[in-house]
Amino acid sequence: MQRSIHPSFRSVLADNEIVRVAGANHALGGLLAEEAGFQAVWSSSLEVSASRALPDASILSMTEYLEAAANIQKALRIPVVADCDTGYGGNLNVAHMVHEFEAAGITAICIEDKLFPKMNSFAAGGQTLLGTKEFADKIRTAKAAQATQDMFVIARTEALISGLDVDAALERARAYADAGADAVLVHSKVKTRDQVVGFLEGWDNRVPVVIVPTTYPDWHIDEIKQAGVSVVIYANQGLRATVSALRETYRSVYETGDSTAVENSIASVQDIFALQGLEAWQKLDV
Amino acid sequence: MQRSIHPSFRSVLADNEIVRVAGANHALGGLLAEEAGFQAVWSSSLEVSASRALPDASILSMTEYLEAAANIQKALRIPVVADCDTGYGGNLNVAHMVHEFEAAGITAICIEDKLFPKMNSFAAGGQTLLGTKEFADKIRTAKAAQATQDMFVIARTEALISGLDVDAALERARAYADAGADAVLVHSKVKTRDQVVGFLEGWDNRVPVVIVPTTYPDWHIDEIKQAGVSVVIYANQGLRATVSALRETYRSVYETGDSTAVENSIASVQDIFALQGLEAWQKLDV
Amino acid sequence: MQRSIHPSFRSVLADNEIVRVAGANHALGGLLAEEAGFQAVWSSSLEVSASRALPDASILSMTEYLEAAANIQKALRIPVVADCDTGYGGNLNVAHMVHEFEAAGITAICIEDKLFPKMNSFAAGGQTLLGTKEFADKIRTAKAAQATQDMFVIARTEALISGLDVDAALERARAYADAGADAVLVHSKVKTRDQVVGFLEGWDNRVPVVIVPTTYPDWHIDEIKQAGVSVVIYANQGLRATVSALRETYRSVYETGDSTAVENSIASVQDIFALQGLEAWQKLDV
Amino acid sequence: MQRSIHPSFRSVLADNEIVRVAGANHALGGLLAEEAGFQAVWSSSLEVSASRALPDASILSMTEYLEAAANIQKALRIPVVADCDTGYGGNLNVAHMVHEFEAAGITAICIEDKLFPKMNSFAAGGQTLLGTKEFADKIRTAKAAQATQDMFVIARTEALISGLDVDAALERARAYADAGADAVLVHSKVKTRDQVVGFLEGWDNRVPVVIVPTTYPDWHIDEIKQAGVSVVIYANQGLRATVSALRETYRSVYETGDSTAVENSIASVQDIFALQGLEAWQKLDV
Repeated sequence: MQRSIHPSFRSVLADNEIVRVAGANHALGGLLAEEAGFQAVWSSSLEVSASRALPDASILSMTEYLEAAANIQKALRIPVVADCDTGYGGNLNVAHMVHEFEAAGITAICIEDKLFPKMNSFAAGGQTLLGTKEFADKIRTAKAAQATQDMFVIARTEALISGLDVDAALERARAYADAGADAVLVHSKVKTRDQVVGFLEGWDNRVPVVIVPTTYPDWHIDEIKQAGVSVVIYANQGLRATVSALRETYRSVYETGDSTAVENSIASVQDIFALQGLEAWQKLDV
Repeated sequence: MQRSIHPSFRSVLADNEIVRVAGANHALGGLLAEEAGFQAVWSSSLEVSASRALPDASILSMTEYLEAAANIQKALRIPVVADCDTGYGGNLNVAHMVHEFEAAGITAICIEDKLFPKMNSFAAGGQTLLGTKEFADKIRTAKAAQATQDMFVIARTEALISGLDVDAALERARAYADAGADAVLVHSKVKTRDQVVGFLEGWDNRVPVVIVPTTYPDWHIDEIKQAGVSVVIYANQGLRATVSALRETYRSVYETGDSTAVENSIASVQDIFALQGLEAWQKLDV
Repeated sequence: MQRSIHPSFRSVLADNEIVRVAGANHALGGLLAEEAGFQAVWSSSLEVSASRALPDASILSMTEYLEAAANIQKALRIPVVADCDTGYGGNLNVAHMVHEFEAAGITAICIEDKLFPKMNSFAAGGQTLLGTKEFADKIRTAKAAQATQDMFVIARTEALISGLDVDAALERARAYADAGADAVLVHSKVKTRDQVVGFLEGWDNRVPVVIVPTTYPDWHIDEIKQAGVSVVIYANQGLRATVSALRETYRSVYETGDSTAVENSIASVQDIFALQGLEAWQKLDV
Repeated sequence: MQRSIHPSFRSVLADNEIVRVAGANHALGGLLAEEAGFQAVWSSSLEVSASRALPDASILSMTEYLEAAANIQKALRIPVVADCDTGYGGNLNVAHMVHEFEAAGITAICIEDKLFPKMNSFAAGGQTLLGTKEFADKIRTAKAAQATQDMFVIARTEALISGLDVDAALERARAYADAGADAVLVHSKVKTRDQVVGFLEGWDNRVPVVIVPTTYPDWHIDEIKQAGVSVVIYANQGLRATVSALRETYRSVYETGDSTAVENSIASVQDIFALQGLEAWQKLDV
């Protein structure tokens, strides 16, 4: 059963040498990530927008991303890290976002230094960055808006995504840390870990580093830890597995004309009941 | 891109000898069902509640089921059939439900003759039925509440689920059809098609019959059609496949320590972009 | 600016000999009640349903009442007492309700011993009560579901509303207190305070008493306190004043053909800006 | 009772020489405006944001403004004109907005040529305009996104608000009309009608003109019609009257210590029941 008790992301980070985070777009996904051992869940804007069959391009609103993050959080005993894109506009939107996510029990948010409306980092076409000072202001605004000590603000730089070099990424990350960011996320879309390794070598550890190894999937968690990363987000593998599974399942049922073929490879209805916590709920009705 | 144009379920039923419907809990699932060839999508209350990690027991509200159904419908060119449980309360709730689903562009709803709050039909423990007359009143209320000719109301009898026999199911179905139901859904949880076949043999075709072959998955679509069924709903296979896929994916990433192993078996980020219609959306920004 | 910090209702009750609560249906109303000196705000189901032009008859969903209560709470430095009708169904709904309201920062809820779906207490036509034991079970369920010490559960008896006598009301109230209710609300629709006074004379103070003096408006707060009441809710005067004001304003503008006549009797646009906290917000954009 | 049938704004405009529109922030306000004779309702962003005690500065999301507009529309037999600020971002947001508002049954929207995030037009401090071509692109995008003939797109120019002159306003309005706008709204915050009269004298009537006479309240509807205006929006008088009424009511109840004094000047509970349509709803429960 769901109760709003979960540790803050800040405390989870304090308790773990490295925090592994899995992307999800609904509470069930979050629950399965928790079951697998992950220490936190990423309410991925790519996953959430895709679940609505809409692009990851600031089309869904803060309200919709917040609802997704809050619904995931309410089902879990591990914290959600909310993917908050650019902060949904300017400084006023950032302050309001912090108020709203905090009121909904979210203890960690991540905002990135792209212009609003943003485009997904892996999409073709250039990305324009907000000025370093302007984004540092957003970070400062976010930190000033939080009501509790818990709220953890991650500053994500898209410097490497936008074609800038490692030095530029470092310069931005340092400015964001100095503005109060609790961690920095350095994102890269090249097919190797090289850019991120370069960043880590130049980083002075003023705050922890977060990475998202989508395009360099072979970097092992032990090596990642060794390299000085504190948080690693497997941002979208769950959604991509879901697409494959649904595609194959629907195809099989439709083409074969019945659901016999899929019946043995999919979870049972009893499995679903267990994930829903049905037995505990039914005990309420004596 | 999403535009609110889609045929009504009524017209799809008129145009197809048999309508195959797949369960989904989000727009992306609905889109993949459409891609596979299904003619409609079932906004399954089991799927939607499970995606929230909550039991299928009238715990989520009409607002939440409506939001799920409407979000699916907006992404599709095929109609959604909304799983509306018991109608969310009494006659007033049923009338309001019709107003709201119709206002949101939904053209078919299904309500069942269990008491509110309901419990999922496959859950252990007895199910109590509403009186035949009382449920016929709900159907009459629903039909009187609709604003357009489009809205298609399916009356689902849980007579067999609750332990009554085929004659009792037939008697209820006839009463519901006479009260104005556009179709009747006869649900069974025995492991064979026998009960449903018995029902179909006794049915006088005053309105079309809908079935949900979860526990008798080997009944082939050609035989189903032959037996006189008009609509078949594959209600929860998508969700169950999702659970298996997420479980395996999260486990692999966590246990192996990287995402290399899953990388080749899951959809690519480019696949996701295509499902999001990214290219068409990007053209709006010249 | 809005930040999610506010005292719990429990602490406000501890700090005040009598707590005065005003009904509201939106954050602005709550803010004006706070400005007037009230110590808490009642997210009245009559007000919220009326603001949607729908009856107060369990037609709106828990989601909608929760959204109203949470939006009010986020704007205030005083606590919201959420009017939760019958608890939105059975025990499972009550447990879920507590989880959800608590997760949204609400520190006090009130549920009543009518059947779901309910009808407003002042509406013509009889009201059917739930059995005493069944409602005591709901109270027990609510108390068992809360995650924090803060959550304050008020048990409202509609015994007098449904035509039972003071002794019956006392018996129910005692059972609810024994089941764990933090306070009892005794509601009456007769035109004098007599029934409630009778109740208070027979009450052994095992928990505080809450009243709603809609039909006996002349009972002065000093006398109410003297009589042993701890919380008094002015449940719907705000909405009723709103209706009069809107009716007169719209009529004047439409009939006179311009808005000159109303201009001097209504708040200025600058007043609105002040209530919105505009100046503080604008400072975020340097 | 609510049913989703209402004429489109386009048809109301065709049937009336001048259309008078009243601002509202909830369905009840809309209903009272309809009752007073208005032909349409404006889901004012100032009213909706103020009802949340938040500034009118693009802080609430499209989702929240849409919900407000849709909830008003569902209660009315006259159309809602949705105040959509700047369109909530860039072209993609505008297209999505049209999809969503249309899917919710809204038949008229208004977007303005300020930058996102916007600030209310009457707030102190400068306003920056989007380029004429860029805003014309938004209008083109909106018109291309609509699924039905009904959707009516109003282009609002803030040229005068931002300090530009009448010629600049005319030039922008012409460009927007040429891009497909169904009407243009010219907004002014000077204390006389002079700017707007100047605009109307220079306007070649290629599309109808909409005005919002907040700061020149003495312009009579007959003169407005005479001057060539087709639609006049009384945008915020309802909210401002609500604030005065709530302030006075809460103050009286709190300071006098009971609600006797307000009782005779406010609507009765029976009035509220009538606005809720209670009697018609109760008939559903035979």
